[in-house]
Amino acid sequence: MIEVDTFKNFDDIPVKEVAPGFLSKFIHTETNTINFVEVKIGSIIPNHQHPHQQCTFILEGEFQLIVNNIPQVLKPGIFAIIPPFAWHHGKAITNCKLIDIFSPVREDYKAL
Amino acid sequence: MIEVDTFKNFDDIPVKEVAPGFLSKFIHTETNTINFVEVKIGSIIPNHQHPHQQCTFILEGEFQLIVNNIPQVLKPGIFAIIPPFAWHHGKAITNCKLIDIFSPVREDYKAL
Repeated sequence: MIEVDTFKNFDDIPVKEVAPGFLSKFIHTETNTINFVEVKIGSIIPNHQHPHQQCTFILEGEFQLIVNNIPQVLKPGIFAIIPPFAWHHGKAITNCKLIDIFSPVREDYKAL
Repeated sequence: MIEVDTFKNFDDIPVKEVAPGFLSKFIHTETNTINFVEVKIGSIIPNHQHPHQQCTFILEGEFQLIVNNIPQVLKPGIFAIIPPFAWHHGKAITNCKLIDIFSPVREDYKAL
């Protein structure tokens, strides 16, 4: 048994497919949404923007990210800090495991 | 070459040993401090508190965390959301790789 207010089990978090091939587990705090996402090779996130800052870290694999028309392959050594309202899109070059950290909370994802 | 405002290389972030055996790379945004930390087996963080919320995720290994006197072994499937001002301490059961996400920014770590 774990003390559920402080300690959490990933198994208790439902998987949500917010775009085809993007399988997310979301953790919402008062200030952030943290997205542990597994992405299937070849999956594409279309160009979009949002008012949240987004930090994206790659735990495994490679992900092509384009921010404000600037392309970069993210991998475990290279991460992104996407400013609020910056346009961005991307494609999984391999199967990937990523962490996105949004600030403030993604109320739109909470509502899913 | 990478576009340094948005894309960052972990190799460019200095390692800081904030407690013996805790080797950190800090990323400070406007709203968060993100701490990628490698912890050597047996290393101890003494009991402390801070006004920041802290989310702690284990990428590799096991870490014994005690929050408000409640112990829990963290590992890749089990994480912690430590409330502001909660007393916490811990010990690395194995060599570990952790991510701490603090909100708001750890100005004390920025000053290191």
